[in-house]
Amino acid sequence: MDPKEGGKGHRRRGAELERALLDAAWVELTETGYTALTFEGVAQRAGTSRTVLYRRWETKADLVLAAVAHMIKKGPAQLPDTGSLRGDLVALMRNSNERSISSNALLFSYLGGYFRETGTSPKDLRVALIGDRTDAFDDLYARAAARGEVDLALLTPRLRTLPIDLFRHEAMMTLEPVPDAVIDEILDQIFLPLVTPKRPAT
Amino acid sequence: MDPKEGGKGHRRRGAELERALLDAAWVELTETGYTALTFEGVAQRAGTSRTVLYRRWETKADLVLAAVAHMIKKGPAQLPDTGSLRGDLVALMRNSNERSISSNALLFSYLGGYFRETGTSPKDLRVALIGDRTDAFDDLYARAAARGEVDLALLTPRLRTLPIDLFRHEAMMTLEPVPDAVIDEILDQIFLPLVTPKRPAT
Repeated sequence: MDPKEGGKGHRRRGAELERALLDAAWVELTETGYTALTFEGVAQRAGTSRTVLYRRWETKADLVLAAVAHMIKKGPAQLPDTGSLRGDLVALMRNSNERSISSNALLFSYLGGYFRETGTSPKDLRVALIGDRTDAFDDLYARAAARGEVDLALLTPRLRTLPIDLFRHEAMMTLEPVPDAVIDEILDQIFLPLVTPKRPAT
Repeated sequence: MDPKEGGKGHRRRGAELERALLDAAWVELTETGYTALTFEGVAQRAGTSRTVLYRRWETKADLVLAAVAHMIKKGPAQLPDTGSLRGDLVALMRNSNERSISSNALLFSYLGGYFRETGTSPKDLRVALIGDRTDAFDDLYARAAARGEVDLALLTPRLRTLPIDLFRHEAMMTLEPVPDAVIDEILDQIFLPLVTPKRPAT
């Protein structure tokens, strides 16, 4: 459907061409899976030649990693600032729903061959795409601590990522947006009771 | 490598033949992924004909579900009974490591095409294979409550599965056995503080 390179339509170049190639690679990935994906198939879908692809990506793993990055990297997630820790975390998770974290989860389902071939894991892929981000929520928690909503001494590295880990587990297991009721349970039954400062007995 | 059906070796029948077919389907699944898997490929690998396969499984989804069940269903997991809640949960998770839950996690990576084609999720697959098991840990928690280690009123449905959900998240993200240090964090930083009976202030 796209005009061929050098066809009578306009010739796609640079960023526009790259986007078209990566879109094609993404669709090919979701339709055939990593193992069956070929440069030839992606080239056909993009209406171009394998040479155009090989000029940019040496291996299938490179091409697929670029396609995945293209799909999920919509710029760094903006941390919400609603005025309360609970409000921030609800917004963060609802926002992740909107950004289709469930497609990211589904995505893992297509990448068995990739992980196998490259000896990497979903976690490695995440780090390659968005960085380690162990400090991703530092600002959010610092604001909550300033408001007296969280005791930073209780907030171990594992607790810092606990809400989003549980959210991701749910999304990976259901391949659906995470319902508000589950977000509430994660926060009210698990996370907030663990990090809320203990009031001194009166 | 397996003798052909009706070859000069012994003719495989019944359960033995079925095991050989499902082993072949499993290997084919992990090597090619769901989408590229064919009855022909499985038949070749098992040294038999497609007819033998079609006699047992009508569709690719049926065959793959059977192969997965064959691999992961090693009989119902025995609940440990170590004498303490913490000991039981550590044993449960170490035991899951031994039973290669990380391969089960990796397995999800091969099944994108399956989930897509059947409109199901990893959670649905789990229920299909091992049942809903919302009551899987009832005995374990009842014993802990009898020892005064857990307050059953605090143990909501979400909390009942919390340790194993966090364990599974880790296994799915790393595709490795979950280290003891992570098991300790899950129990000591998260689960046990949430369910341990609150002592009355003295």
